[in-house]
Amino acid sequence: MKLAELARQLALPRLGDDVEIRGIAPLEQATGSDLSFAEQRRWLQQPIRAAALILPESLATMVPNLPCLISSYPAIDMGRAGLLLGLRPMQVAVGIHPTAVVDDSARLADRVAIGPRVVIGPHVVIGADSIVHAGAIIHERCEIGARCIIHSNAVVGADGYGFQFMADQHQRIPHFGIVCIEDDVEVGAGTTIDRARFGATRIGSGSKIDNLVQIGHNVQIGRNVLIVSQVGIAGSCHIEDGAILAGQAGVAPHITVGKGSRVAAATGVATEVPAGKTWSGWWGQEHRRNLIEMSALRKLPEFMKRVEAFLARWDQ
Amino acid sequence: MKLAELARQLALPRLGDDVEIRGIAPLEQATGSDLSFAEQRRWLQQPIRAAALILPESLATMVPNLPCLISSYPAIDMGRAGLLLGLRPMQVAVGIHPTAVVDDSARLADRVAIGPRVVIGPHVVIGADSIVHAGAIIHERCEIGARCIIHSNAVVGADGYGFQFMADQHQRIPHFGIVCIEDDVEVGAGTTIDRARFGATRIGSGSKIDNLVQIGHNVQIGRNVLIVSQVGIAGSCHIEDGAILAGQAGVAPHITVGKGSRVAAATGVATEVPAGKTWSGWWGQEHRRNLIEMSALRKLPEFMKRVEAFLARWDQ
Amino acid sequence: MKLAELARQLALPRLGDDVEIRGIAPLEQATGSDLSFAEQRRWLQQPIRAAALILPESLATMVPNLPCLISSYPAIDMGRAGLLLGLRPMQVAVGIHPTAVVDDSARLADRVAIGPRVVIGPHVVIGADSIVHAGAIIHERCEIGARCIIHSNAVVGADGYGFQFMADQHQRIPHFGIVCIEDDVEVGAGTTIDRARFGATRIGSGSKIDNLVQIGHNVQIGRNVLIVSQVGIAGSCHIEDGAILAGQAGVAPHITVGKGSRVAAATGVATEVPAGKTWSGWWGQEHRRNLIEMSALRKLPEFMKRVEAFLARWDQ
Repeated sequence: MKLAELARQLALPRLGDDVEIRGIAPLEQATGSDLSFAEQRRWLQQPIRAAALILPESLATMVPNLPCLISSYPAIDMGRAGLLLGLRPMQVAVGIHPTAVVDDSARLADRVAIGPRVVIGPHVVIGADSIVHAGAIIHERCEIGARCIIHSNAVVGADGYGFQFMADQHQRIPHFGIVCIEDDVEVGAGTTIDRARFGATRIGSGSKIDNLVQIGHNVQIGRNVLIVSQVGIAGSCHIEDGAILAGQAGVAPHITVGKGSRVAAATGVATEVPAGKTWSGWWGQEHRRNLIEMSALRKLPEFMKRVEAFLARWDQ
Repeated sequence: MKLAELARQLALPRLGDDVEIRGIAPLEQATGSDLSFAEQRRWLQQPIRAAALILPESLATMVPNLPCLISSYPAIDMGRAGLLLGLRPMQVAVGIHPTAVVDDSARLADRVAIGPRVVIGPHVVIGADSIVHAGAIIHERCEIGARCIIHSNAVVGADGYGFQFMADQHQRIPHFGIVCIEDDVEVGAGTTIDRARFGATRIGSGSKIDNLVQIGHNVQIGRNVLIVSQVGIAGSCHIEDGAILAGQAGVAPHITVGKGSRVAAATGVATEVPAGKTWSGWWGQEHRRNLIEMSALRKLPEFMKRVEAFLARWDQ
Repeated sequence: MKLAELARQLALPRLGDDVEIRGIAPLEQATGSDLSFAEQRRWLQQPIRAAALILPESLATMVPNLPCLISSYPAIDMGRAGLLLGLRPMQVAVGIHPTAVVDDSARLADRVAIGPRVVIGPHVVIGADSIVHAGAIIHERCEIGARCIIHSNAVVGADGYGFQFMADQHQRIPHFGIVCIEDDVEVGAGTTIDRARFGATRIGSGSKIDNLVQIGHNVQIGRNVLIVSQVGIAGSCHIEDGAILAGQAGVAPHITVGKGSRVAAATGVATEVPAGKTWSGWWGQEHRRNLIEMSALRKLPEFMKRVEAFLARWDQ
């Protein structure tokens, strides 16, 4: 396909020569007739062998000799270009795969796709255009909104982890609640979201959860939250709208992670994260402060040596 | 239902007026005719809008105007009250779901519940009243005691991670052993427990394991141990009776975590944890000592500045 | 079986008396007529009750009175001895289990074993002698080499975690790519490996991945890499040949972990790890340096007290 034709179909402005585009590739692998894309200035500080690029207007002057399409969202337009060039993401068949186990009392809206070996328990509700991939399990009474994607082998609505030590053993506390997943949510492969003790564990609309994440009973997650792989959120936490938790972070029980805040990878959150703040550290705190302390720690051995030498001189 | 009738059926002492109870809810959400509960003094330092509370006798004087049921185990009695009020935890059907794959040579005791798409391998033994939830996999020859709950998509008895580098490649070392899970154990959703190289990986009776936990080959876990979500226990560890490992903690191979000890969240355990001790830290050590060091680290940048200023004056 | 007969069948030199061998066990549990093994000098610093040992020649003089088989690879030869004594690892049946869902367009080579409830998507390719255990899911177009083992409930080829915030919501970026797993690879139980945005997420031949590991989209893993349980590798990382990542380590996006390097357990890798280096720390760095800093931190509280006392004297 010609770049001009792509530009026309994507409705993007084009700069430079018209060239033939045969494939797409990330910048470091793109060669020959490949289309690629860039989002940041530093991406362009390497030899570019792509035939053309999709990039924001602000970067176009950095590659004056290269054919370009101008886009505010290069990654999204690369995806659209890929579709036009005949590439395909994983295909999902609308309807219920014959090997899925869907309880008679479950209510599935229009155009739902239920993959092989999915289990949908009694009284589950799933909204229109949602996809449940192979092997995922949605337990009794849980609710899933419209346009959600539940990835393979995720478990929604297992009993929460709650016990009372009594008569010399840990006795299970019954979990009467459910999991309620609002519209446009993704739940990653192998992720587990436990049902509430009462009421609902809730995932707000537009939130995207990566693989192997644990979300405990009664957790309340707001809208458009991003939770990256292997994060663990203990019971009854509140994660407010637009927060971002990077990979392997952990949040202790009953903690609030405020609106628009960011939690760095592997951070241990044991106190409230105020709205808009960035948190980091094994013992989580404000990120800038954590950096200052980590930098001090990096200088500590030599500092100690110097001070010890000084003390030795004066303590004589 | 009237509170007096609930009190009678639960066999709990009642204080204050008799009131109508229609639902149950956690303290911060309970209103109108809801029953709620409290376990600690600070829970009651908020406005209470519940119709009545279940609480220990020691807290009753804090809410003199509120109808109460007196209980030594409020969470458990809330669960019992919920059942009386018609609430239901996830239902489990005794018997083998038609989509489960149960090897002919497996022996299942009375009243076992095997959910949809469960796989039970050859020569597996499962004790009376145990539940294996949807999608869980119990591999060949593993043993599960009575009254156990294996949650969805857990994997019991996969081969342990053991290789020998030989002739330029990592060669698998055969795993002849099994996993032996004693009575009254829970294994969380997505959790993996590997079979032993020889003998058995063992989970002692009454131990409760949360979701997405990894337990390596030949690990020996005692009785009534609690292992919270995303903990990883490397091969051949001993976790002794009554120990508690909080979320995301990790234990290095061949380590003993002593009887009744506690390991804080995200702690890295690389040395023995003595019985009864509490351990914490990225590089795990006694918790109190870790707190002292973490507090010192928090003061380090300013301390360094002050000392540097002092040295600058004297080194002139 | 007599030890001499074992020696003959294993083609290993024998020292000491010929004895009857009836079973095998790890060193601390071996008694009576058990064969056991040792790989390191310190293993032998305990009372030995085994009937005979397999050990390297260098250790034989430590147990002069014990019958021994001399082996360069004791763990492997213990496995071979176990097989000769009639022990069996988990059995795997070649062929496709009737409950597996294998798309008509998938191509399976000779002697492949597909376990119960496995899902093999369209256009998947699996090489000869590979095993896919119960409940594992291989999504559309992914490629698996020869002699691979995919353990239970692993998910290969789910969509990567990639979104663009646009028009007030996180929009999914399409993932056109696949997962390509080369020969002789193991993928642990519950592990998730995401498909690439373009091209392939690649696991090089001979690499062994443990349980509950997350491998993000477009990650490139070299040959003979070891990745221990609960490690998380973010998108587009390169893990070079022979690297070892211990349990719960995490690698930030686009990072290179060099050839033959080692990453300690729970290490956070946010910068390149040079070839051959060992890395550790919450904020990962060269291991030896990390030890120096951690040791300094251990002395910090007392050091501060001493310096504060000194300053107090001089600042008067």
